[in-house]
Amino acid sequence: MSNSAGLAAINQWVDANSARLLEELFQLIRIPSISTLPEHAGDVARAAQFTADALKTAGLENIEIIPTERHPLIYADWLHAPGKPTVLCYGHYDVQPPDPLELWVSPPFEPEVRNGNIYARGAVDDKGQMYAHIKALEAVKALTGTFPLNIKVLIEGEEEIGGASIAKFVPEHKEKLKADVALVSDTALYAEGIPTLCIGLRGLCYMEVEAQGPSRDLHSGLYGGAAPNAVFGLIELLAKAKNADGVIQIPGFYDDVAEPASAELDSWNSLPFNADEYVNNEIGAAVTGEPGRSVFEKTWSRPTLEVHGIAGGFTGAGSKTVIPAKALAKVSFRLVPNQDPEKIVALFKDWVAANKPAGIEAQVKVLGTSPGIIVNPDHPAIAVAAEVFEESLGRKTVFTRSGGSIPIVGDFAKHLGIPTVLMGFGLPDDGLHSPNEKFKLANYYQGIATVAHFLQRYGG
Amino acid sequence: MSNSAGLAAINQWVDANSARLLEELFQLIRIPSISTLPEHAGDVARAAQFTADALKTAGLENIEIIPTERHPLIYADWLHAPGKPTVLCYGHYDVQPPDPLELWVSPPFEPEVRNGNIYARGAVDDKGQMYAHIKALEAVKALTGTFPLNIKVLIEGEEEIGGASIAKFVPEHKEKLKADVALVSDTALYAEGIPTLCIGLRGLCYMEVEAQGPSRDLHSGLYGGAAPNAVFGLIELLAKAKNADGVIQIPGFYDDVAEPASAELDSWNSLPFNADEYVNNEIGAAVTGEPGRSVFEKTWSRPTLEVHGIAGGFTGAGSKTVIPAKALAKVSFRLVPNQDPEKIVALFKDWVAANKPAGIEAQVKVLGTSPGIIVNPDHPAIAVAAEVFEESLGRKTVFTRSGGSIPIVGDFAKHLGIPTVLMGFGLPDDGLHSPNEKFKLANYYQGIATVAHFLQRYGG
Repeated sequence: MSNSAGLAAINQWVDANSARLLEELFQLIRIPSISTLPEHAGDVARAAQFTADALKTAGLENIEIIPTERHPLIYADWLHAPGKPTVLCYGHYDVQPPDPLELWVSPPFEPEVRNGNIYARGAVDDKGQMYAHIKALEAVKALTGTFPLNIKVLIEGEEEIGGASIAKFVPEHKEKLKADVALVSDTALYAEGIPTLCIGLRGLCYMEVEAQGPSRDLHSGLYGGAAPNAVFGLIELLAKAKNADGVIQIPGFYDDVAEPASAELDSWNSLPFNADEYVNNEIGAAVTGEPGRSVFEKTWSRPTLEVHGIAGGFTGAGSKTVIPAKALAKVSFRLVPNQDPEKIVALFKDWVAANKPAGIEAQVKVLGTSPGIIVNPDHPAIAVAAEVFEESLGRKTVFTRSGGSIPIVGDFAKHLGIPTVLMGFGLPDDGLHSPNEKFKLANYYQGIATVAHFLQRYGG
Repeated sequence: MSNSAGLAAINQWVDANSARLLEELFQLIRIPSISTLPEHAGDVARAAQFTADALKTAGLENIEIIPTERHPLIYADWLHAPGKPTVLCYGHYDVQPPDPLELWVSPPFEPEVRNGNIYARGAVDDKGQMYAHIKALEAVKALTGTFPLNIKVLIEGEEEIGGASIAKFVPEHKEKLKADVALVSDTALYAEGIPTLCIGLRGLCYMEVEAQGPSRDLHSGLYGGAAPNAVFGLIELLAKAKNADGVIQIPGFYDDVAEPASAELDSWNSLPFNADEYVNNEIGAAVTGEPGRSVFEKTWSRPTLEVHGIAGGFTGAGSKTVIPAKALAKVSFRLVPNQDPEKIVALFKDWVAANKPAGIEAQVKVLGTSPGIIVNPDHPAIAVAAEVFEESLGRKTVFTRSGGSIPIVGDFAKHLGIPTVLMGFGLPDDGLHSPNEKFKLANYYQGIATVAHFLQRYGG
């Protein structure tokens, strides 16, 4: 045991413990901690307890399971390295619902390794990556008997439902959470083997739009032609929100969009990108969206409007000739840096009021918002991260963005004044939020080793 | 007992038997014979048996429960009046699904009389009206010991799902079903107390449109902006099918639409119509649809496009940020006389193929079609029906159309060469296919008496 362990020693520790490291992760994955479904609240609580226990095993102290209005937060720390930087590790132990269940090859909460991948809901988003942090801490402690810097850990159970509790907790506990940098593993490598630091994220406004037509469901024979139809009204309204090219038609929507610097665009354009692979294996359909924009721009630096789901009227087997009274759609905007979520919500509400079809009432309910963010790439922690990532994977680290939203990164910037190192170990085709979500087994182990190496090196 | 019974005697019989007539109807209504839901197939069979038993009680002979690919047909006859006309009575014992259940004041299959109305699924469509026919036959037999003309009865259990079995049965059994006129009670009085003969019906093309975008559900953060969205694609496609005025945008769709004669239009315009009542109490929303057309035209003589239901993506509680791979809509056209259902289906399929959005595949599946029809008002049976209706309700009979579809009426015209007397006892606000469907109790009894009176008078 020494005060510092090199990458080789860390890799050796991971190898020697590989079976246990996998089985423990499987135990966590088997808990169906689906945060959005009230019937799984007990599972979410079990996952929180499991995570807290793992932090204790790793050598963390002051472990707290903090009740919230919904699902608990977990806090832990180790603060015995005066003069050394403090790293705040973040992750989430909740997962998305697994439906449509019939499309899974193996059951979503019975993890299985096939072709070198762990298949399960939460394998990569975010249980596998969050647990890799905890195991990296355990590795450092096991190899050196201590930690080379100060550690704080904050883990939530509401990331997949908007993160309301942590968003409230962070500004109310600035002193407790004070740190030099945050470390988050909830993103992906740009491609297999390419060390990738993500320095930009899109924000999100997630809403429900409800349409009401007639006061009750009507017979389409007797009233069809004269009565408004809530489903058609909602269809008509939402269709107007984008043109055939995917350009959002809400006045003022693009006003504050910050375009990426030309250097950033140039670097994206130098990334390897296989368009055939993307079309045929990743999305399985033609690329659509704004003309004249690359896929990088479309998914990293351009805002979007999506309808995530729609329901209304009769959709059972056979035919029912009804004019539906009500219809509901789940709608979101992805936002990019400089767009203000509150302003966008207001623009959308005004637009809905002005554009609802004749005979249709429409209501917008906001379920959650977060701004797009850009991380300052000049921070020393980012430089160290780029260096260790390069060492770990044997290749130069690239800087990218992600089109997804990690609202906590914006909260850390706003309330704690710290940047976040987004060091992710997923792969682009991992199928986050989809059936057959996977996490490459080698990347799980690599994640443990790379995070441990980062902590050692940043602790100097 | 005499060979003929006048309206007064019939009314007396109905009064004397009123409690039993109601309780028997309740027994039929309590059987949830929802033809579209496979799990209710046993209930549909029970309703068929109940109906066959009632025909036996009424004095009919040669009763058959005829198996089909789906739900049984019921046939019965009484053919001992040589030289007298033959009436073919038609009805259906199946019902629409009752959802949304939470909007019913009393459970849909536990009939209840409130404010003089029977509330239940099937109360008016069509169990109450079909059973009124059977009880009218029973009344005639009870009062006169015989029937004054030849009777054939054909009752189906698939009216609410397109009537495939009866549509096959009729052309294959022309001799068995040979008659002078058909009598159908599956329509409504124009208004309370106004004897109404419906001489026109709209047809129907009922279809499913399925859209496929990406090959799997995708994370809207990682792929949003570049990947097509099946729900939005379906929305975009269907929204293009009508303009903001409700005018259908499919080329050639209106080519064969027959406009009503100006005499018919004039008579419609002379009908009492309370626009406030229609807006506030019937549809509970503003009147929409083609500009410059009256509500009568919109609902009786103009074709429509409706989306009866739509489903796709995530619509549970909370938020799931998915780009859905698939979406489905139930879509129908109501057709008017002279429009060919097959031609309309072909136009729609071509239009879908030409208009599907980028990245979206769309399939049209036809669940059932029937043409719009017009009944010849000069047939002697129609004249008798108008006369007895006038006597029964004490007011001149009006001729109207219905916007609904009764495909069997077209089949009787096409294959048997006979017109249909559409003598309905419902009311416009009965809520067919909706929660809290009702049938005015007095109209149930009046229906029994009027049909009995018609049989006596038409039998001479």
